[in-house]
Amino acid sequence: MNNLKKQVGIKAATFVKDGMVVGLGTGSTAAFFVAELGRRVAEEQLKITAVTTSSVTSAQAHELGIPLKDIDEVPAIDLTVDGSDEIDLELNGIKGGGAALLMEKIVATYSKDYIWIVDDSKMVEHLGAFPLPVEVVPFGCGQLFHLFDVLGFKPTFRLDDNEENLITDMGNHIIDLHLDKIEDPAALAKLLDETVGVVEHGLFNDMVKTVIVASETEGVKVISK
Amino acid sequence: MNNLKKQVGIKAATFVKDGMVVGLGTGSTAAFFVAELGRRVAEEQLKITAVTTSSVTSAQAHELGIPLKDIDEVPAIDLTVDGSDEIDLELNGIKGGGAALLMEKIVATYSKDYIWIVDDSKMVEHLGAFPLPVEVVPFGCGQLFHLFDVLGFKPTFRLDDNEENLITDMGNHIIDLHLDKIEDPAALAKLLDETVGVVEHGLFNDMVKTVIVASETEGVKVISK
Repeated sequence: MNNLKKQVGIKAATFVKDGMVVGLGTGSTAAFFVAELGRRVAEEQLKITAVTTSSVTSAQAHELGIPLKDIDEVPAIDLTVDGSDEIDLELNGIKGGGAALLMEKIVATYSKDYIWIVDDSKMVEHLGAFPLPVEVVPFGCGQLFHLFDVLGFKPTFRLDDNEENLITDMGNHIIDLHLDKIEDPAALAKLLDETVGVVEHGLFNDMVKTVIVASETEGVKVISK
Repeated sequence: MNNLKKQVGIKAATFVKDGMVVGLGTGSTAAFFVAELGRRVAEEQLKITAVTTSSVTSAQAHELGIPLKDIDEVPAIDLTVDGSDEIDLELNGIKGGGAALLMEKIVATYSKDYIWIVDDSKMVEHLGAFPLPVEVVPFGCGQLFHLFDVLGFKPTFRLDDNEENLITDMGNHIIDLHLDKIEDPAALAKLLDETVGVVEHGLFNDMVKTVIVASETEGVKVISK
């Protein structure tokens, strides 16, 4: 699996050119992309500026010597490469397994190009087997949890290593919704967007046009829509 | 003006009964309601539990000896009374002049009854002369500001006493939109709900059924829909 993740990470890095502002995703697959960018910066004198999607990725980029700027210090982002937890046939996705969905979605919003890199286990017919992360305001999150429960969304709080509610980089909590199968991602996104107390959710509908997938049998493929 | 605010504050307090869980609004008008509740708790042995909508209101309630609980420690809120910065003919409103719109909207969402108290200067034909506050995630708020600017929303950052971006009780910033006239509050709410980086906005559409208004000429009136 790590070999497949590494293959797509290296492939995605070939899309990065000198002078670009690059958005760096978060998670085990994105980490291979960041590592390859770090190698190119060190060995090939690749000149880029990077914008992070999490404190974890910032730390990795810093260690690799990739120059980082705050998202508000760049005019726009040329290309963001990130992983995804599930991708359906329309290239809608679920993200947030790494609890970075809010910063990931903000960076993606201001990116001219946006690519997901995955191993083929992430490609699914319907979204929802992967729990859908929802980033929520701490104030009143117990009331919101109850609301999700009444709606049949089978919510659970994401916990940290101390079994406390996890606190995201933006100071919020995560509620995971165990939906099994999301019949209509657009309708669910609308409902969550309009729910008071929801800061952001892990449905990334219609945001990418390019996905790089690796499988044991077929190698690396670039899917576009 | 303060006399009108005091009149509606006192009137609203007559809706509060023993045993209720009461949501306490934020702002100069709500403060008169909270003060009257404090008087009734002290002088009439009124037994209530209160839930706050801001750190400012918490401090006032605490000083007055009104028992406070966290919103997640109560099963629901019986009645919330709050001010409003503008109210149109459909009883849609703009709130957030006091930068507490997020907590105010969360408390309102879980309230069985919800009343606004205002002086008649707040009653308008169309919303929008009052700047519309939008609570935004700090990460990428400069990009979002630019987006609002391009949309013609005439954004300004709310500043604190040190001329820095104000930080709300929930750790976010406020961007005020100077729209002059909001033609379609529902459409604007939908756009803002769906905008990445927006935590919440100050449009409170179709949330109240009762408004208590005071004017110099007509005294205190209760408007219902």
